[in-house]
Formats: sequence, C-alpha cells, structure tokens
Amino acid sequence: MSDVLGKELDTADFDDVNGTPAPATDAPLLHNISSPADVKALPADQLTELCREIRNTLLSYGHTHGGHIGSNLGMVEATVALHRVFDSPLDRIVFDVSHQSYVHKMLTGRALAYLDPRHFQDVTGFTNPDESKHDQFVLGHTGTSISLACGIAKTRDAELAGNGTSNIGNVVAVIGDGSLSSGVAFEGLNNAAEQGGNLIIIFNDNEMSIAGDFGGMYGPLARLRASGGTAQPNLFNAFGLDYRYVEAGNDVNALVKAFAEVRDIDHPVVVHIHTLKGAGYEGSAGNDQPLRHADAAQQVEGIPATDNVLHAEPWHSDHCNLSDHEPHEGQCEASHWQNPDASLGKPEDPRKYYGKMAMAALEPRFATEPGLVVISPATPGSNGITHEFRERAGAHYVDTGITESHAVAFAAGIARAGGTPVVATTASFFQRAYDQFFQEMSLNRSRVTVLDFLGGLSGSDNTHSGAYDLSMFANIPQVTMLVPTSGRDYLDDLAWATLPAGDADAPDGAVVIRVPGEGILAAERDPNLLPITGGHEVARSEFTTADMLAWRVNQFGSRVAIVGLGNTYPLAERTAAALAADHGIVATVIDPRQCTSLDISALESLRAEHSLIVTLEDGQLEGGWGEKITAYYANSSNDHSRNPQVLNFGASKEFTDRIPLAELNARYGLTVEHLVSTIADAIARR
Amino acid sequence: MSDVLGKELDTADFDDVNGTPAPATDAPLLHNISSPADVKALPADQLTELCREIRNTLLSYGHTHGGHIGSNLGMVEATVALHRVFDSPLDRIVFDVSHQSYVHKMLTGRALAYLDPRHFQDVTGFTNPDESKHDQFVLGHTGTSISLACGIAKTRDAELAGNGTSNIGNVVAVIGDGSLSSGVAFEGLNNAAEQGGNLIIIFNDNEMSIAGDFGGMYGPLARLRASGGTAQPNLFNAFGLDYRYVEAGNDVNALVKAFAEVRDIDHPVVVHIHTLKGAGYEGSAGNDQPLRHADAAQQVEGIPATDNVLHAEPWHSDHCNLSDHEPHEGQCEASHWQNPDASLGKPEDPRKYYGKMAMAALEPRFATEPGLVVISPATPGSNGITHEFRERAGAHYVDTGITESHAVAFAAGIARAGGTPVVATTASFFQRAYDQFFQEMSLNRSRVTVLDFLGGLSGSDNTHSGAYDLSMFANIPQVTMLVPTSGRDYLDDLAWATLPAGDADAPDGAVVIRVPGEGILAAERDPNLLPITGGHEVARSEFTTADMLAWRVNQFGSRVAIVGLGNTYPLAERTAAALAADHGIVATVIDPRQCTSLDISALESLRAEHSLIVTLEDGQLEGGWGEKITAYYANSSNDHSRNPQVLNFGASKEFTDRIPLAELNARYGLTVEHLVSTIADAIARR
Repeated sequence: MSDVLGKELDTADFDDVNGTPAPATDAPLLHNISSPADVKALPADQLTELCREIRNTLLSYGHTHGGHIGSNLGMVEATVALHRVFDSPLDRIVFDVSHQSYVHKMLTGRALAYLDPRHFQDVTGFTNPDESKHDQFVLGHTGTSISLACGIAKTRDAELAGNGTSNIGNVVAVIGDGSLSSGVAFEGLNNAAEQGGNLIIIFNDNEMSIAGDFGGMYGPLARLRASGGTAQPNLFNAFGLDYRYVEAGNDVNALVKAFAEVRDIDHPVVVHIHTLKGAGYEGSAGNDQPLRHADAAQQVEGIPATDNVLHAEPWHSDHCNLSDHEPHEGQCEASHWQNPDASLGKPEDPRKYYGKMAMAALEPRFATEPGLVVISPATPGSNGITHEFRERAGAHYVDTGITESHAVAFAAGIARAGGTPVVATTASFFQRAYDQFFQEMSLNRSRVTVLDFLGGLSGSDNTHSGAYDLSMFANIPQVTMLVPTSGRDYLDDLAWATLPAGDADAPDGAVVIRVPGEGILAAERDPNLLPITGGHEVARSEFTTADMLAWRVNQFGSRVAIVGLGNTYPLAERTAAALAADHGIVATVIDPRQCTSLDISALESLRAEHSLIVTLEDGQLEGGWGEKITAYYANSSNDHSRNPQVLNFGASKEFTDRIPLAELNARYGLTVEHLVSTIADAIARR
Repeated sequence: MSDVLGKELDTADFDDVNGTPAPATDAPLLHNISSPADVKALPADQLTELCREIRNTLLSYGHTHGGHIGSNLGMVEATVALHRVFDSPLDRIVFDVSHQSYVHKMLTGRALAYLDPRHFQDVTGFTNPDESKHDQFVLGHTGTSISLACGIAKTRDAELAGNGTSNIGNVVAVIGDGSLSSGVAFEGLNNAAEQGGNLIIIFNDNEMSIAGDFGGMYGPLARLRASGGTAQPNLFNAFGLDYRYVEAGNDVNALVKAFAEVRDIDHPVVVHIHTLKGAGYEGSAGNDQPLRHADAAQQVEGIPATDNVLHAEPWHSDHCNLSDHEPHEGQCEASHWQNPDASLGKPEDPRKYYGKMAMAALEPRFATEPGLVVISPATPGSNGITHEFRERAGAHYVDTGITESHAVAFAAGIARAGGTPVVATTASFFQRAYDQFFQEMSLNRSRVTVLDFLGGLSGSDNTHSGAYDLSMFANIPQVTMLVPTSGRDYLDDLAWATLPAGDADAPDGAVVIRVPGEGILAAERDPNLLPITGGHEVARSEFTTADMLAWRVNQFGSRVAIVGLGNTYPLAERTAAALAADHGIVATVIDPRQCTSLDISALESLRAEHSLIVTLEDGQLEGGWGEKITAYYANSSNDHSRNPQVLNFGASKEFTDRIPLAELNARYGLTVEHLVSTIADAIARR
C-alpha cells in the first residue's frame, strides 16, 4: 500500500521552485480537486476511483506521519458523498472531534498536505476555520458536534424567520459511535428534536471507539444494524428523532443516494451509516488478532480483498501505539504529529512509561484488594494501560467510554463504598469532569486517585494542551495535587493516595497525581541532568500526610532559593549548578512535590538567608502555583521591605498549537541561561 | 393545609427543656418513626396514613421555610415504599441532586426537623453523610446518581467476588425526569447495563423539570406512560437496560409491590414510576393556570380531591419565586433557606433583579436581531427570566434542559453562524460546561455572552457556592470577564458583549459578565453605601475594547490604593471614607470593572505615590484575581524594594455551608473595621 513512499524518485518528482520532491502523482483525480465543486463535477462513475485514491493517500500518509487514520479510512466514501451532495460552505458540516476530517480537508483545497510530505505542516490535525472556510470549528474533544450544529441551525432558522433569508443552508453534524458515549452528545440528541428544523446528523457507526465500544447502548445498536435499521428499541427514535439506515456505509453511491434524500429536509434526522473503521488498512506485521467486526465485514469497493481485513485492536501493537497526543478516536492510538514508521524502536514517551509503571505497581494488589479499580474514560493505550494489562486486570479495569464526567462520579461512588478507584486520562479531557471533581469528589471528600497525564507544557496541539491542569485541579478546595519528580516519588505518591480507607496515614480526600513529563523522564534516563542530587533522592521517612506534603530541600544555600515544581525541577538543579559555576552563588534548591498547599515552615525558614525566591512551573502562571508563593510573602509579614522578592516563571495565559516544548520553554524564560542571568542580576541589585 | 402552623399553642406545646413550642402532634405515626425499621414495622394498612401525615408535614414546612416541596410531595409514597422494602443503610439509596430527600430524612431519624420549626436548622437541604448513615453523598447538582450508584455496586460486586462477602446490599439510584436530561445521567445509563449486577434505577417521572421538560425524549416517554410502559422506542431499553413501569406512582402499596419484585435483582433495572409532582399542593391564590399534567391526573390516596390539583407553573408566581439558591428541580423555584410566606412583598433578590434588567434590555432588540437568543439550562425563574418574558421571547428564548455542557456548545454554534447567544445560569452549575468554555467557546473565539449568576460569596449552601467562579472563568485564555458594579455598568457590559459580530467595537471572543450581587444591589437602593461617588459614575466615553477593559479610578489619593472588584467595590468606598475620617488618609479608590487582564497603565501610575495596594474580591483568593496584581508588581520591577506592597483580601480555599454573608465577610477580613486598621498599620510601618 505504500506505493507513494516506495517509488523511486525521478526528476519529474522535483518541482521548479526548491528542488524538493514533488507530490506523488498516482492520485490524479485527487490532485485535480481543489474544492467541493470539483467533487460535484466528477462523472459519477469516477467517485469510486476517487475514493480509492484517497484511501491510498491516507495509508501512505499514515505510515509517514501517523494520525487518526482508522476513522478517516472508514469515512472516505461518506466524506466524498457529503461533498457530492451538500454545498459547503453554504451548507455547514461539523465534524465531531474532527479526527475524521482528513478526507474533508483533501476535498476542500488541502489535498497537497496529504499527498506531499513537504506540505505536511500546512494543515493541522483538526478542522480549523483559520485554515478553510469549509471548517466550522477547532475541535479535539468528543461529543459536541450535535450541539454546535443545533446552534448553527437555530441561527439560520431565526434569520429565515426574521429576515426571510440566511446564508446558511443545510446543517450537518458527523459523529461516530465512540463519540456518542459522551454525555454532551446525548444532550445534543435530546435537544435536536425539540428544536426542529433542518438538521442532519450523520451517525458514523464503525462499531469501535478507541479501545472497543463500552456501554449498554451498543447491543441495541448492533441489533439495529442487523435488522437493517428497523429494530426497536431505536435510541434515536427514543430521543424523538427521525431515522434512516444505510448498511453500505463504504459504498459511495449508496451514500450519495441516502444523503440526497435528506438534503433540505425540514426536520432533524439521523442517518445511521455502517462503516468499516480502517477500511483498507493492512495491520501491522505479527498482529494475530481475529477479525473483530461483529457484523459481516463489508467488501469495500476498490479495495483488494486481501487488504480488506480489519485486525482486532492493532493499536495494542507497538507499531500503532506511539501517541504523544490524545486521540478520542482512531484505529491507531497514534499522534497526528509523530511518525509511526520512524518511531519504531524508539524509547517510550513519558505517558506510556509512567502509565505502565503505575499499572505494574497496582496489579499485584488486585489479588488482595477487590475494591481496587482502574478507570479509563476510553483512552487507555495512550497512557500505558496496555491491552495485556486490561486483559489481566479483568474487573479491576473499567473503560467507561468517552465519559470523563461519569468516570469521576463513578469513582466517587466506589470510594464511598470503601473501594479504591484510580481514574486515568489526559489533563485536557479531565476538563469534562470539572464539576464532578468539585462536587462528587472534593466536596464529598471521596478518596479518588486521579492520574493526570500530559499535564503541563508540551508540544501539543491547542485542543489537548495540559498547560491549564494545575489551575483547574489545584484551586478546588480539599484536593491534594502531587507533582512527583521521579519514578520513585511517583510510586510513593500512588501508594499513599491508594492506601486503604482505614489506614491511619491515608489522605483525607482526593489526590491528583500529575504524571511526570518529558523533563523528568529524561532525567531518569540521564542522571547528569540532575547535577545537584544526581538523581539520588532523600527517601521518605514515612507516609503520613505531613510528610507527603512537605517540601524537599535538596540543597541548602543562601541568597536565592529555586523552587522547581514537577517537570521543571531538573531545570532548577541545572540552574543552580550554573549559578555556582558561573557566579559562585550556592542556591537553595527545593522540590515542592505538591502544589495545593504551601509548606509554611519551609517558606519561613528561607527568610533569614534569602532575598530572592524563584518559582518554576511548566503551566499557566495565572491561576497557577508560583503566584500563591508570591502572595504568601506579600501578605504574611508586617515588614514588607524585609520580604524576599519572588520571581515567577511559567506559561502565559494563551493557547499554543504544536509549538515544540523547547521553543515554549524559551518563550517563557524556562531556560538555564535566562534564569541564571535574571537571578544574578536580581541578586546584584539587592 | 396549614393546621400545624395555624393551631393555637397551649402548654402541651412547650417542652420541658427550654420552653419553646413543641412539635406539632397531628403526625402521630411520623413522630414514632426514628429509623427505616419503624417503617417496616408499621401495619400495612397504616402506610397510606403515614403518607398523608408526611404530605401535610411537607406542606406546612414549605409554607414556613420554602424548599423543594414539589418534588418531595411527588415522592412521598415512593420514599415510604423504598424504606419499607429496602434495608438502608445496608441497601444504599442515592438520591439524584437530593432535592427530593426530605421524606427520606423524615424516615431516617430526622422527622423533627420538618415537624418542629425549632429544629429546622438541624438538617441541610440535601443528603449529607455527616447527618446520617442513610445518606450517601452531599449532592446539589443533577444527574450523577446513576454513576455514583454504579460505583457503589461495582465495589460490592468486587468484594463479593474477592472476599465472598460485602457490607453492601441493593444499590438504588433515584432520579427524576428533569435530571435525566443531564449528559452525565445518560453516561450513567449507558454504563449501567455494561457493568451488570444488582442496580435499581428508580426513574421518578413527574413530567416536569424546573420549568417544564425540554427535549426530544419526552414525547416517547409520554407514549411510554400512555402505553403502560409497553411502547417502543423505550429509551432505557435502548441503553440495554431491563425496565418496569408503575403507573400508580403515588400509590404506596403498588410501589411496595413493584420494589419488592426488583429487590435483590441480579442485573440493572429501571423502575419507571409515574408520579404527580406537588401531589397535594394547593397552588397560590390567584393562580389561574390550567392543569398542566398531560396524562390524567392521578387521584392521590389520602388527599382530598380539592387539594389534588396541580397548578401549571405556580413557580412563576411571586409566592413561589423567591429563590436565593439554585434548584434543579422543584415545583417552586424556592430556596430551602428562605421563607416563602414571610418573604411575600419583600424586594427582589439580586439574581432576579439583574436578571430581569438584562432581559428587559435584550427584549426590544428581538424584533430587529433574529439571531439574538437567550439560553437557560433549565433554571430561568431563579435568574429573573420570567415566565412572561419567555412567552414573549418565543424563539429568542431556549431552555435546553439541565444541560450546561450542551448549552455552551449550542451557544458557540450560534455564534459561529453569526448569531448572538446569551447563556444564563448559576455560577456553580457552569462548572458543568468548563470544557466547553475552554474548547468550543474560548479556543474558537466564539462570541458567546455568559451571564454568571450568584458568583462570589453568598450565604449559599456548599454545593451551590459561587466563590469559585472567577478562578474558573478568568484563568481560561481568551475569555473576557467583566465584573460590573452598578446596573448601569451591567447594561453597558451586556450591550458591548452582544454587539453584532460586524461591529468594529465588538469584543474578539467570549465575554462573561458576573451578575452583581447583594452588595451592589444594596448600594443601588441606598447611594449612601457609596460615600465617595454617591453612586454617580463616570460615563463610559466609548465602547471600544480598550475602554471596556480600563480600570476606573473614582478617587485620586496617595499612599494607599484600594481596588475593589465587583461586589466588594462599595466596601472599597466605605473603607476609604473611614480612612479619611479616622486617619486623614485619602486613598485612591479604583473599580477595576473586569478581572481577566491587568490595566498596566493604571498599575504603573500608582507606583509614584502609593506604597500600598489593597485588593478586595468576594471569592477565593487562590487562583483568583488579587494575586495576579501581587505577582505583577513582584515580577515587573528591577527594584524590588521600590515596589508597592500588595495586600489581598478574599476568601480562603474552602467549602462553606449556609454561613451568612456577613459572617463570611468577617471571617475573610472584608469589613471596614478590619481593612481600616490593617491599612493604617501598614502605612505606619512604611
């Protein structure tokens, strides 16, 4: 399937401008599509060939760049049919979570980004109105497409009622069966029928979420498919919605016909299309899982039968399991921004590394702790909760579907019953559970352990950035948030957080553990990155709450104290080492280990010998951690002039999109050079 | 119905201890119930009489104290039946949002709190494990009961599998049809069948949410009722759940029979009971609305026919419309902590006052702005969005059900389409939409206007406190949060936020407006509370973004600047007046008007003449606003010793429960006395 990559280059492959390889040329139809009008203009008998080209392009692209290839492969024909039938941008198409929008991008003037590796960076991994008038929103979290579409349709109908005219035609939401498990998607369904008017919900049912579909609704959905859309109970009917079924969800002509029938419909309708996720994808070598597709696998037109094999969970193979970002959907849980082929054999990223470490620590306890349960709202693989672990864990592992709100409330219920829940997902997805963190968890002092992955700065895209996790968690009353700086600390933190409820040392409420990131993992692999301690930690004396929350002073110095939270702690050591080497200043170096309370005794002990306190954090300063220390000193003393000065380093309040971590660190002053010069200058002025 | 209140007291009504009135004695059965065992021990033929006593008690209680009386009246028989059949606390009953738990409290040792006004304060308005072993959680937000129950059941089953024993029996979730519109409730339904095992979901269907049910599912639910539970589509079946129907949901014997049939069931089941919200409630005088109950109203046993009348929306009458807190359910949108009868004729609370003011400003625009839409996730009445307004607004008003997540995504869709959405609800409920605020709204720069009611400190219960609103909203990138200090400012803010998208002065993204609270409304009613300005504001020169975000210096002074955010602004003026009177210090007094960016030019201009800056805010300091100012000065100058000292006053990071506002203000130092002495001391030391 990798003709594009494998073919020999000749001079025709180099363009005139810069001599770099030109786009592959075995997608002639796709090359000529610069807008949806070109899709409409194609002879009908060429649509299947266009789909074949798109599928080949996706596969080549996926091998080179990774990405949410599975969901896009399943949506090739449907997306071609959408642009054949509807008239974007007059008609508005909202792609839920927008992982499946690659084909849409190819058909709306952006094919080159998929055909030509040199243009890879031209587009983002998600829909984006800044990129194209055919994109409605930047979306990377699931389940909101129906609500967004309701809003667009509402405005159209209001304009029609008020002015008799509107620049909005049909409104289409495209949502997958995995996304449908999100509560907000059900809220959208429930509101759509109430609202009325033209609204077309394409329900892309490929029978798979990220790691299989979880939920009681999937049985009735399977029966609905088996009956050709006629069986009851019909979930969509139960929400008061009209409903159509298309079994041949990878037959572009069948889809064109079905979509044409609902175009300009005067009321909300669900068009349930049965697609084959990863259609055309040939699984990684050595994958011996049986075919998972419950219904008979469809023959996808234009795809050789030998390729039309869906491997069960190819994402559990290393080949596909390289995500640094968080997919909510996709046959491979692979980042849009990494290269699956090129990444083979490389060391694990911190999410997988520390995720596996936590699971390995918990697993031996399952035999004697029946109430110990790991909960993942649908994204286990990215966080090191491997397929094999899940199999072994049995009832000790629960995938709740893409339902962060439910997952946290469920965990609170487990805690109330005396069990020990551990909820694991990505920081930005936990935003979905903010109210449950406040109410069911914290207000109720439920002993929930939260594993917060990808917290802090990273090169993430804008919808998955973890730069805001601390301002979310650490400002909720009664939450303890631990920020370990080594694998050892991390396991100690996990052990403490999950102490049985009756244990005298157990925490009195919820504990959020921020899973270490790249900076910490790098230091574990190379202790030279910790020039002060060399990675040798002072062992915890005990596991009492007081001990767990105490700051750890790893070097006693004077004049300046550098307090480096979490992922920035190695930077604190390297800065201190450079200060000593370059300026003869022996700084005090502190690992605060947690960010939800201040160690007053440590702060007070610094007064005598320190005129400057420097705080480092790899997240947003506003609402963050360092400002609490600044405010502590400002408000704690009767004599302002004798307070130490506090300088805070961290991220600005902004969204960032795929900016490399090193560049972000430089932007925010989180570099040895900048810190050393700033500290030396400040000390010189005191 | 007010025998209890109306009867003459005699000496028998005074108890021996303190001479205050003894409990009413016309509820002899209820008086003798001190635990569920007493419910079980009653002769079967006395259950109906017990229900009658409970209903009378609820009505008397409601007239005296207010509260969520409607939902409790509908649940009298079901709650008695639950405690007759199940064995709490071995069997665990989770009441969704727990507004309907009064009867449960009466039957679990707390009847006196409802029978005897002197014991009113003995219990909270919600379930609370600190109050009783029969209460599982503190809950005041909707929709999480199924998830919580899943967690309890999961732990029971794990213990049974691991140890062969568990101290948990049946697990029961009780959820109303209004609560069911919350996304997390659907997530719970979808997970319940997947989990399996004993789990009993009592679906209390009274056909009403807070202001009527909204959503496409309610049509099919009505057909389900009409068919005696046999019609398809059946929403619960669609989620893979077993299902039973009980039409006579106010017949205690029918309910006992139905619950006994599912007791100890080995799989999840929904028991759909059709109840009459407010059963036995005689609407307020002058209410001439027709009977709303769609199905034939049931005769409630033991209630005289004349009382068995359900008035349509009695909550739109003043009698019932006195809430200071946020009900998610209840025939009257009335606070548990106010007195409906005693409150008659009193001035409106700030939520209603400013809510009505906003609606009055928007309404005239409807005729010419078809895309202008007010969205309320189910709680209009409490926020001054009156029944009459809703009727007149027509399509310009949308109740989305109890769906904050959907409401905000819906608003983002409206904004993308060029419309002008205004989303209005209570601060603590907006926590449900945190991710949509981040993603669909802010990341997408959707021009959504958010009206944030009950933000900041109040005497609220712990689940509805708005003390955390600023740390939630103001730390999200690209959000502008305005904090008006008068009705005039508030309307200016609303006008600016809702400028048409094409207007050159329109904000570039979402605007959150914190609706003024008690402190501001008091000053509007009594300008003497603003001794510096007397309430006379400097008019805005223009409506540009720069002008809208500029701080307003209302008095120029020296040495100390007092910056009072929002509801604390009148305190800033009073403190300044006292400083002048008592200490001869003329303070600079500033109304910052917004809390999402700093007015650098104002901050810098203070340096020359001010050694002390005092910030006041009526919310949590951690993650809040004042600390940003402290951090600004700490990080902005090369010469720390010449920076002004900043002192921050605001709330601690804690949950508070029904503590009067004045007491909270005293606790946090937000009083003229404390501020004057602190400021005078600090200045004396400089």
